[in-house]
Amino acid sequence: VRPAPDLPPVEERPVLPSGFAAGGTSAGIKASGRPDLGIVAVTTARPAPAAATFTANLVQAAPVRLSREHLAASGGAARGVIVTSGCANAATGPAGDGDQAAIAGALAAALGCGPAETLCASTGLIGTRLPVDAVRSGIAALVPGGLRADDAGLEAFATAMLTTDTRLKAATTTVVLPSDDDVSRRPVRVSGVAKGVGMMHPRMATMIALILTDAAAEPALLASLLRDAVAATFEQTSVDGDTSTNDTVFLLASGAAGVGRLRSGSPAAAELGAAITAVCRSLARQQAADGEGATTLITCRVSGAADLLDARAAARAVVRSNLVKAAVHGRDPNWGRVAAAVGAAMRPDGTPIALDPTTLAIGLAGTAVFSGVPLPFDAAAVAAAMDAPELLVEVDLGRGQAAAEAFGCDLTEAYVRENSAYST
Amino acid sequence: VRPAPDLPPVEERPVLPSGFAAGGTSAGIKASGRPDLGIVAVTTARPAPAAATFTANLVQAAPVRLSREHLAASGGAARGVIVTSGCANAATGPAGDGDQAAIAGALAAALGCGPAETLCASTGLIGTRLPVDAVRSGIAALVPGGLRADDAGLEAFATAMLTTDTRLKAATTTVVLPSDDDVSRRPVRVSGVAKGVGMMHPRMATMIALILTDAAAEPALLASLLRDAVAATFEQTSVDGDTSTNDTVFLLASGAAGVGRLRSGSPAAAELGAAITAVCRSLARQQAADGEGATTLITCRVSGAADLLDARAAARAVVRSNLVKAAVHGRDPNWGRVAAAVGAAMRPDGTPIALDPTTLAIGLAGTAVFSGVPLPFDAAAVAAAMDAPELLVEVDLGRGQAAAEAFGCDLTEAYVRENSAYST
Repeated sequence: VRPAPDLPPVEERPVLPSGFAAGGTSAGIKASGRPDLGIVAVTTARPAPAAATFTANLVQAAPVRLSREHLAASGGAARGVIVTSGCANAATGPAGDGDQAAIAGALAAALGCGPAETLCASTGLIGTRLPVDAVRSGIAALVPGGLRADDAGLEAFATAMLTTDTRLKAATTTVVLPSDDDVSRRPVRVSGVAKGVGMMHPRMATMIALILTDAAAEPALLASLLRDAVAATFEQTSVDGDTSTNDTVFLLASGAAGVGRLRSGSPAAAELGAAITAVCRSLARQQAADGEGATTLITCRVSGAADLLDARAAARAVVRSNLVKAAVHGRDPNWGRVAAAVGAAMRPDGTPIALDPTTLAIGLAGTAVFSGVPLPFDAAAVAAAMDAPELLVEVDLGRGQAAAEAFGCDLTEAYVRENSAYST
Repeated sequence: VRPAPDLPPVEERPVLPSGFAAGGTSAGIKASGRPDLGIVAVTTARPAPAAATFTANLVQAAPVRLSREHLAASGGAARGVIVTSGCANAATGPAGDGDQAAIAGALAAALGCGPAETLCASTGLIGTRLPVDAVRSGIAALVPGGLRADDAGLEAFATAMLTTDTRLKAATTTVVLPSDDDVSRRPVRVSGVAKGVGMMHPRMATMIALILTDAAAEPALLASLLRDAVAATFEQTSVDGDTSTNDTVFLLASGAAGVGRLRSGSPAAAELGAAITAVCRSLARQQAADGEGATTLITCRVSGAADLLDARAAARAVVRSNLVKAAVHGRDPNWGRVAAAVGAAMRPDGTPIALDPTTLAIGLAGTAVFSGVPLPFDAAAVAAAMDAPELLVEVDLGRGQAAAEAFGCDLTEAYVRENSAYST
């Protein structure tokens, strides 16, 4: 699958931008003893401008509600981010809110800032309480002695976020932006880490991801860039159609690269936005590829849509379809399921997309299989081409110029086993 | 699970109302040689008033489009219904339309009526052509010699509809309505047969079902009663979240019971409506229980909703959730997944339902597990109670008086195998 146009290239590794320190530890939240607590601290003199998007689920976890409050109270300024895994702290009532506030207080004390300058996210089982004393001990172990201002620190943080993930998810890119003096230009780093990989069908939000940059920008601009990036990437990703109670994306800008503060609408702001989108897109694809039980990353690329909402809805419908996902697992070029999924696609307001079956075209793994009528094709050859870690499904609606993509994975017996045999 | 209130009792067997004859045969559409062609004929002097609901999928099968045209042309009058299984005749272009018209012509000639007085439905693989000559031979074998005016005829018809279904789906009930003389009352029969069981997530429509009654009613009244019944039953059923290209429900009223023609808004019309709803509900539950790979029928009953749309959306969200379905398969009382599903429920216009986590309550298999906060409960005992052919999930939104139910099934390794190993 070729990269999306107009986006800078991305490397899939954790690279810490300047102005941050990070680390992770095993606090004892997970019974397995695996890492379950990560902290990122801002090391510049002033707190970092910050923005976030959160789940649209009405049953919102305590850390989601607390982070939202803190961002509002601080005006979008953050000193530190804490992520816990193994317990979602969702549907835990007032006691869960108290737990999260206590943790924020402990982190703020350790960092020497106010609680409103901390952000938090958590992931894991819904309905269980966080072991606050264990988390406090974990914070004491990490701040300041356990944090590192290098890539290994970010890797430790990213590792501590994981639950049923089988691998770390990281992405990084650089853009060259005007420096403070407005004459020369300097490189700016944009990096992100994320976790997936079940209860994943982000809506107006996404799973947990943290995007860091050493660019300089106001919170309002960061929020605008993040919203556009999330809509094109995380919100176009589905593992199982289930929208989490804990979806969270944070974006922090340390300003430590020494570049000028970006103005909204400027070419440099657009360049930073493309970098953020590129990092989010890479993370979303890594999440989908590591979807619970998955063996194949599905990319659905829709073109010829009447507008962007139609294109996104059609692409999402394909990667969400259980029947398409099962066919991909079986390497079955059953394009009728793609046609059925696109035909049932709905825009966010519940109305159908603009679609005429006579102008609809479908391609599987590079082979055209339908164009208003079924096309003759070599089913064995397409099945063989589908037997790969990644599959491209192309859909042309033939109704306009808009295009979009979405990311998903195949549906396997292993997904069912993983989600029926264990409480996750 | 107790029966829905205000509905007459239903028996799960095929009982043919008076005024109809039915039969089924193996025409050779299915390579297996199993029955694949069913016909119901109207035996009264005049064609039967008829109504239908069809899939909202924009990629509509040829039989869906042709039946819609015929109903409009005939003003809602039908002489016969033909159902073919093994081939959906969807996404087949103009050639598929020609095939379906040829079949309608053959059926009309055999029944001695105009083509517009025939209705058709089909189910099976998308994108393949119907073998028209084989279907013509099947029609010749059935009409008139192979049709029977008894329950065995309806059973043969229902058997010929099945694809991946493991059992026949039939339901019947009676209501006593005013007779022609408006003094005495007579029994009226309402019967239905249906097929499931994959690509099943009916929207503005349902999978293939045929409802027959010997009551007398105008097409407009039938359409109104059918719409209400389908909205409360088939549209509240999901096997895999995939909306078919072929969903069709027909309702035919022979009038042969000798009761008076029902007036819209009359108590007798409401009684017939309840009988139709009871039959549709039974069929929908039989479809969900026989969902591909399923071992457990899930009924989600939502109460305390602000309005009916909220109640239906919440109940549907629960039975659609892959994670809830997998937890039910594992007999895991993981109520957090129910909370997450309800929290992400959307009304038909894409807006969230009215939900406040502090007034939300959840019950599993009769045990209260959440009421604003997690409740202590005996997980082993609830897991044991979940190990049954049917599970009741109760959700109280605590926001109003509206209630609704929805039907689904567990997600199993067998579902994945069935839908990845074979083109269906």
